[in-house]
Amino acid sequence: MARVAVDALGGDKAPGEVILGALEAAADGIEVTLFGPAGLETGGLPLVETTEVISMADKPADAVRSRPDSSLVRAIRAVGAGEADAIVSAGNTGAVLAAGLMHLRRLPGVMRPAIAVPIPARDGPSVLIDAGANADARPDHLVQFAHMGSVFSRELLGVSEPEVRLLSIGEEDGKGNALTIEVHRLLSEAPGLRFAGNAESRDLLRGAADVVVADGFTGNIALKLLEGTITELLDALRDEIASTNRSKLGGFLIRPAARRLRVRFDPDTYGGAYLLGLRGLAVIAHGSSGRRAVANAIRLAARGVENRVVERLADRLPARVRV
Amino acid sequence: MARVAVDALGGDKAPGEVILGALEAAADGIEVTLFGPAGLETGGLPLVETTEVISMADKPADAVRSRPDSSLVRAIRAVGAGEADAIVSAGNTGAVLAAGLMHLRRLPGVMRPAIAVPIPARDGPSVLIDAGANADARPDHLVQFAHMGSVFSRELLGVSEPEVRLLSIGEEDGKGNALTIEVHRLLSEAPGLRFAGNAESRDLLRGAADVVVADGFTGNIALKLLEGTITELLDALRDEIASTNRSKLGGFLIRPAARRLRVRFDPDTYGGAYLLGLRGLAVIAHGSSGRRAVANAIRLAARGVENRVVERLADRLPARVRV
Repeated sequence: MARVAVDALGGDKAPGEVILGALEAAADGIEVTLFGPAGLETGGLPLVETTEVISMADKPADAVRSRPDSSLVRAIRAVGAGEADAIVSAGNTGAVLAAGLMHLRRLPGVMRPAIAVPIPARDGPSVLIDAGANADARPDHLVQFAHMGSVFSRELLGVSEPEVRLLSIGEEDGKGNALTIEVHRLLSEAPGLRFAGNAESRDLLRGAADVVVADGFTGNIALKLLEGTITELLDALRDEIASTNRSKLGGFLIRPAARRLRVRFDPDTYGGAYLLGLRGLAVIAHGSSGRRAVANAIRLAARGVENRVVERLADRLPARVRV
Repeated sequence: MARVAVDALGGDKAPGEVILGALEAAADGIEVTLFGPAGLETGGLPLVETTEVISMADKPADAVRSRPDSSLVRAIRAVGAGEADAIVSAGNTGAVLAAGLMHLRRLPGVMRPAIAVPIPARDGPSVLIDAGANADARPDHLVQFAHMGSVFSRELLGVSEPEVRLLSIGEEDGKGNALTIEVHRLLSEAPGLRFAGNAESRDLLRGAADVVVADGFTGNIALKLLEGTITELLDALRDEIASTNRSKLGGFLIRPAARRLRVRFDPDTYGGAYLLGLRGLAVIAHGSSGRRAVANAIRLAARGVENRVVERLADRLPARVRV
């Protein structure tokens, strides 16, 4: 069974909700170890005692360097040392990345690790990569993201020949900014990828492609907009329904249908995102994660371990990429 | 009453839906003139006969230069010549921009025209600028967008001291890519703006700010994602409701509530976006515009004329910006 190291101090609702989520995942049989301060009430889960904290506002690289005994760095080092198979944190994404680069290091040939997130598209999940690890990226980085996303789609989501598209502002080849126009050219010539052209953001939920490639800035804008819009729209629907007695009754009758919709579109259903490209598995959960999201992020990590995501990335990334 | 020149051949549903929308707007008393081929059945609206067409796939600048007698170019030239007060097109956005630059020219001091779109946020519209005119933009361009957006918010939406935020991937000052970090610095020092820091895309519909500034690539990704997500989510809700008899009855009862929601979030409610920064008013409607969207885009253009948007932009843009 997978051994997952959990940063008990990561996220807006830490440590309370993180511990409850960890307990929920442990009940599935996952071997969860918490990393946090002495005296933390863990409900019986093993605790590795740490003395420092990295917060959301901290500068990632500085914080990782200056706080080696933080819950986050210690949890990641446990993976590097082989004491855990994966790390889960709902804390500072940049710090997870910085600590991962420092203590797990990159897979051979990987230029930049990237965040891969399953998007709840109409006919099954699409993989959005990079959802925020690299705010500024070069064209060749995005080509590598396309390869990592394809391996992820094939190995974890079971898509045999994943179709890849580039997130841009028009489907036509020439539409985009300087970065995407160059990436489009490179992807068109890249062997070993099923590149099908640009995707528009309006089609993300319609299942634009199996893998949607973006730089981390654009991908993060897209991911958060998707989540915010879904939340706001469902809230607005609830408010409208509560505004008359007729619609209140209607709201009662559609409750099971609305619940199915919420489950499908709820970001907590996935719980987290893989940080791909390191010599160890890291799952980044939302800063706002509650217990359910944390539990699902830990399950996602365990699934990644069982499916040997890191090993498969190492094996399957085309040699060409390992320049 | 405003005189609006309408490109009868612009958009996926042209000319049929464009003409029906034009007739609907004309019924409000707006003086609509259609630009299109001889023999077009206009339902009695005046027609200026043109012989050429610019399609969605055409390269904007080339098309505008090589097809001076296209419906789009002729409609824009009518504004430049003072024969119309505003132009509406659901056609090629890049071509509207190129023709605007060529035949209307920029307001004094404006470096780049930008697309300003009202976003249906919780407590009233936010202005997103630039929603797609400039795929690649320099930091000082975005500062100017902030000024144009502020004038728009003040003069057309009646916000007395519009709050401006920069669309980025974290609220903290240092979060973003190289472009937004530099723009953040410039906006923090810019006099005459109420800059309140970064906005995250997840807060767009929650009313992140009165004016949300982005480069045209990011703004376009955000706008289309917003529209696509709203459409897909409302469609998914309808499908879920149709799946059982209980929820079908519920769906009947919540129909008025759902309709209010659709109206609030329907992009056709606004119908179009202003292209700001030119010496003439241009409204760009969706490529997919049906008659209602076209009619609303024409009304938006007429409202802009009545509110003297172009004159006010010319007056109110800070002298500093007119380098």
